[in-house]
Amino acid sequence: MKNSFGSSVSVTIFGESHGAMIGAVLDGIAPGIDVDEEFIAHQMSLRKAVGSISTARREADQVKIVSGVFNGKTTGTPITMIIENQDQHSKDYGELAYKARPGHADYTAFMKYHGFQDFRGGGHFSGRITAGLVAAGAIAIKALKNKGIYIGTHILSCGGVFDRSFSADLKNEIVRLGDSDFAVLDETVKAPMIEKIDAARNDGDSVGGRLETAVYGFPAGVGEPWFDTLESVLSHMIFSIPAVKGLEFGDGFGLADMKGSQANDSFRSSDGNVHTETNHSGGILGGISNGMPIIFRTAIKPTPSIYKEQQTVDMRDMTDTTLQIKGRHDPAIIHRARVVLDSAAALVLCDQLALRFGTDWLAETN
Amino acid sequence: MKNSFGSSVSVTIFGESHGAMIGAVLDGIAPGIDVDEEFIAHQMSLRKAVGSISTARREADQVKIVSGVFNGKTTGTPITMIIENQDQHSKDYGELAYKARPGHADYTAFMKYHGFQDFRGGGHFSGRITAGLVAAGAIAIKALKNKGIYIGTHILSCGGVFDRSFSADLKNEIVRLGDSDFAVLDETVKAPMIEKIDAARNDGDSVGGRLETAVYGFPAGVGEPWFDTLESVLSHMIFSIPAVKGLEFGDGFGLADMKGSQANDSFRSSDGNVHTETNHSGGILGGISNGMPIIFRTAIKPTPSIYKEQQTVDMRDMTDTTLQIKGRHDPAIIHRARVVLDSAAALVLCDQLALRFGTDWLAETN
Amino acid sequence: MKNSFGSSVSVTIFGESHGAMIGAVLDGIAPGIDVDEEFIAHQMSLRKAVGSISTARREADQVKIVSGVFNGKTTGTPITMIIENQDQHSKDYGELAYKARPGHADYTAFMKYHGFQDFRGGGHFSGRITAGLVAAGAIAIKALKNKGIYIGTHILSCGGVFDRSFSADLKNEIVRLGDSDFAVLDETVKAPMIEKIDAARNDGDSVGGRLETAVYGFPAGVGEPWFDTLESVLSHMIFSIPAVKGLEFGDGFGLADMKGSQANDSFRSSDGNVHTETNHSGGILGGISNGMPIIFRTAIKPTPSIYKEQQTVDMRDMTDTTLQIKGRHDPAIIHRARVVLDSAAALVLCDQLALRFGTDWLAETN
Amino acid sequence: MKNSFGSSVSVTIFGESHGAMIGAVLDGIAPGIDVDEEFIAHQMSLRKAVGSISTARREADQVKIVSGVFNGKTTGTPITMIIENQDQHSKDYGELAYKARPGHADYTAFMKYHGFQDFRGGGHFSGRITAGLVAAGAIAIKALKNKGIYIGTHILSCGGVFDRSFSADLKNEIVRLGDSDFAVLDETVKAPMIEKIDAARNDGDSVGGRLETAVYGFPAGVGEPWFDTLESVLSHMIFSIPAVKGLEFGDGFGLADMKGSQANDSFRSSDGNVHTETNHSGGILGGISNGMPIIFRTAIKPTPSIYKEQQTVDMRDMTDTTLQIKGRHDPAIIHRARVVLDSAAALVLCDQLALRFGTDWLAETN
Repeated sequence: MKNSFGSSVSVTIFGESHGAMIGAVLDGIAPGIDVDEEFIAHQMSLRKAVGSISTARREADQVKIVSGVFNGKTTGTPITMIIENQDQHSKDYGELAYKARPGHADYTAFMKYHGFQDFRGGGHFSGRITAGLVAAGAIAIKALKNKGIYIGTHILSCGGVFDRSFSADLKNEIVRLGDSDFAVLDETVKAPMIEKIDAARNDGDSVGGRLETAVYGFPAGVGEPWFDTLESVLSHMIFSIPAVKGLEFGDGFGLADMKGSQANDSFRSSDGNVHTETNHSGGILGGISNGMPIIFRTAIKPTPSIYKEQQTVDMRDMTDTTLQIKGRHDPAIIHRARVVLDSAAALVLCDQLALRFGTDWLAETN
Repeated sequence: MKNSFGSSVSVTIFGESHGAMIGAVLDGIAPGIDVDEEFIAHQMSLRKAVGSISTARREADQVKIVSGVFNGKTTGTPITMIIENQDQHSKDYGELAYKARPGHADYTAFMKYHGFQDFRGGGHFSGRITAGLVAAGAIAIKALKNKGIYIGTHILSCGGVFDRSFSADLKNEIVRLGDSDFAVLDETVKAPMIEKIDAARNDGDSVGGRLETAVYGFPAGVGEPWFDTLESVLSHMIFSIPAVKGLEFGDGFGLADMKGSQANDSFRSSDGNVHTETNHSGGILGGISNGMPIIFRTAIKPTPSIYKEQQTVDMRDMTDTTLQIKGRHDPAIIHRARVVLDSAAALVLCDQLALRFGTDWLAETN
Repeated sequence: MKNSFGSSVSVTIFGESHGAMIGAVLDGIAPGIDVDEEFIAHQMSLRKAVGSISTARREADQVKIVSGVFNGKTTGTPITMIIENQDQHSKDYGELAYKARPGHADYTAFMKYHGFQDFRGGGHFSGRITAGLVAAGAIAIKALKNKGIYIGTHILSCGGVFDRSFSADLKNEIVRLGDSDFAVLDETVKAPMIEKIDAARNDGDSVGGRLETAVYGFPAGVGEPWFDTLESVLSHMIFSIPAVKGLEFGDGFGLADMKGSQANDSFRSSDGNVHTETNHSGGILGGISNGMPIIFRTAIKPTPSIYKEQQTVDMRDMTDTTLQIKGRHDPAIIHRARVVLDSAAALVLCDQLALRFGTDWLAETN
Repeated sequence: MKNSFGSSVSVTIFGESHGAMIGAVLDGIAPGIDVDEEFIAHQMSLRKAVGSISTARREADQVKIVSGVFNGKTTGTPITMIIENQDQHSKDYGELAYKARPGHADYTAFMKYHGFQDFRGGGHFSGRITAGLVAAGAIAIKALKNKGIYIGTHILSCGGVFDRSFSADLKNEIVRLGDSDFAVLDETVKAPMIEKIDAARNDGDSVGGRLETAVYGFPAGVGEPWFDTLESVLSHMIFSIPAVKGLEFGDGFGLADMKGSQANDSFRSSDGNVHTETNHSGGILGGISNGMPIIFRTAIKPTPSIYKEQQTVDMRDMTDTTLQIKGRHDPAIIHRARVVLDSAAALVLCDQLALRFGTDWLAETN
């Protein structure tokens, strides 16, 4: 299947940037879980465009649940969530019907869909489609929290400015990130990062960055040795988030330059509970969770919509031309993308847990 | 499914390091493709342990095809390939039945399989299982070559020594790598890399590295916008290869520090054929191929089997203990892993092409 | 996945009988296919409750397409179709929150969803959910017709009254069925069938029947020898339609009493085109289409909602009780179910064709 | 995927009638289950050709387990079982390289595989491939028995002679069937059935029949409302068994002629345990098990290999010709097919249980 992900817990997303509605169908989540519409709205707000560092397009992003919830709880059947598009300015996109924006999917969409794709605002390729993922993910994040599993993402770097990494106080850090409008661990890096974004915007340009995600409280023994390793299923989901071009678990690329004696995490036991003294492996060994925090970092490329003139092709006859993009665009998406990472990871982990422990597990009280 | 991957073209792998046989079932490959047993043997030889830089375990790795090939050609039905294990020294592994080797899957396997896993030599988690993947991949690589699609991987770094990247002469570079016993583009880095491996071995330690893979000739318009993006399906497969902890496409993490104006690849046309002037995106935009070379890099962690004493737990009662690994181990696997990368990627791409263009496409003459 | 079906072309359905909306997401259908909203409305009308032989609940069943269609054509991305519920009388269902209706899914839903299911009107188990399937199927039926493939279903029996079977004039018969409000081949059996339904209704009872489906023009060579045989994938879909309890292909159960010499269909050739002289196998041999019409018959059990007093259990404490159902119900569903069969089969066949010939095939002009 | 079935517990089958080996990979079965090689051999013996009522081809069918079993127990990783072909007479098949046997898959295989299929003895379409299914199924049947779930199939009809149906003494009947070499409930019908088979054989012809399968002890609440209904997943598997052309659950086609008041099964409770007074629904309501025995019947067409002259086409140029089949063939397969039904159903049910209750459930002691 194409726009669906997951096996026991699955999500299907739909919609286009300038269509009538976008949304998601979340299926297989255990029956009897509280659906907290306020929390969903809160999560949606974390993805919203605000201030000068985001696009001028402002969407209410009100999530309407039209199936799968009864008396405020999940029923176990498909939860359909729809979000109306309200602030489309489709007239901005005339020339973009045939001129491929560099760095965007316009050309590849044309090669796949033969010109029948909805090109307005990137259509089905738009980052806007992640709103459905965030809505579905909000239910997954809440369900995991009920089981003592916390997920959080911070902006590790933006425009070359770096945040510090997660500390031993992980659970509290994750809780704090959940309420932050610009998710960094070291608040002093926020202003310099925003400066970088503003500078890029003023220059008609854009910046990228890195996100770091941590999962606290995930049980050991979940994942598979081959093909459906925990890294594999997470990466499958994460590399489908627009702009993600790199992913590493634990020390990731840093491990390539280590010796085995540096990279191996020693096991230690306290009261029969096993932990590792370091966490170079990011909580996953042999594709299976070891009970330590799951840690991964993603590379987010700079937004491809820039206002500088660019060289491209006219897809009507595949000849050279130039393009100057107008309209409303994000000079950076990294601050909006972090909640997408949390949501995407939560959906994957719910699926893995349901496969491992059965479809009711997420709703069972410990 | 767990040990199976792919949809239209799929592979299932099985076996344990010290079991009777390992192997693979390759299903869905188009009927009528020549099966070149010499090429399969050649590919197997690229994965073999040789010299001082690999384990002393020496396996013939003779692939026996027991189904799915008739009169030297694929039939379209499952191709089963079995490889007998011959050089197991299971007695070396006594203590490892209950002491978890740091960096290995012993502890996580225990938490998943409750002690019933075959622990000998890592069992089903062993890198040895990749031999089945290489056997299946050999058929996929050959099928792709018939369609003008070439895949090659080189050792970008090993123990901190770096090779150069692929050049514009990509197709020829890939062909040359196919015959190399230590796959580097710049032959002068080979000796320093091997020195690093030998030094680690002499020190009872191990080294990691980076692999860089290129796919030449892959058609535009293949992949999906969501969930089954080309990056997603490749990453799903690649993160299931043991020791892979990082993956990036195109400029990957480097894109995080670029501006949009630097990262975007300009489109240009010559005679109606579109290309990009740079290839920061690694041949994939919006999850779909753009016809440029697909480029990705993987981080390979150092082999966790080292001879130094390590701290770990006794899994019989989860108490602290120490462990000194004996037996035969690889001080580095990066030179053996590169053919695994080629094989894994080829299987994914065959699947994607069959899904896009139909089950016969791979066997059709252009 | 649970409420999704298909691989290359897939459908996801959602909603409850008394919820806000029901609908479907149709994904993977080739780009560039005309979406004929009038035809969709026509297909929906064939499923509508009309006259005395159906429930008194009357729904407009207006299908609103909110994604995946642009300029009147499919884009290749998910087509989301929503239908608002308008004529729910939820107050009719008070006692049914805890008393299991015999023949319905109330008890099994309770055992699966632990009481959190939406019980109103059968919730997600309601036959009403097939409206989404019919909406999605309308696009599939139209796409198949463009390729010369016609699907039609008639009421082979109802309340013990039998229609004749399809004749050699199959294509025309299918076309005629498409416009019929009570789909029989022999018009003289219509009145006696309706009499049986009316008699059952007057008696507070219900009747079942048989449907016979034919597919004309389906190409040879589609299907798989194992697991995904054409019978297998069709049956998977068809046995998920509520009330279906039997399915046979070709002469089906009749073949059990034949000799091989009677059952085998002789092959004959005319101008290089192969056909069989008889079609006992229903167009499928070894799981693969042979180019002859695909024929299958389904058994539809009588509607379980009857007005007679029945013995059942109170699910609050699992004790014996009695139940007399009130509210609005269908004394027969067979005349409404036939378009569901057409729709379901069309979705399966589109998926099979896309897997076999590629994702663009359905939109290509012959 | 094509030759694989199942999600949490899956099976992949491979091989050809006259190839080197056939076999199966069983994946996802819980770790720690005893593997009883004697029971596997016993199950294989139930499928073997014996006496005059089966083919003269005699295979030892010795199952060799080459992975996934350690110290006599399942490890949780893929169990690969291989069976060598020993009694092939490939020379018998000369003419069959190009003449399509009526009722067989030769023509459809040709249309799918373009002549590259292994045609010898039906190749990958041969009923012989079910030997792998029986080997894998033996492990599944034993695992279910450990959980109190029993599966049995009897010959309900053969050549027009009928056995009685299952009685209330179901569990004991299933146990008795397990040791029978010709599985009927009423022993007096055995001789007349065998007479019918012998008579057909003497006439160069063949007979078909019906199988009836019962599952005792299956828990309530397993299955899905849509697409993966219990009937759907069972039918998907069962319709891939060669020669199956019909399938009905509970009273099946008989329900089509009933009134709702006759067809509905009343619920009754004893000590809080709910049962139904009748079992017209065959243990499944709304796609989900209700705790009653699961009952289904399959139609097995007569073996298509007959010795009478038949009309067919020469596939080299698609012209008319005649064919007289020589070689060794089964005049009936129904007595050999029943263990295939048990095996196939057991694999499906293990998968459903693992999806519902988690991957360890099958190995847990109650």
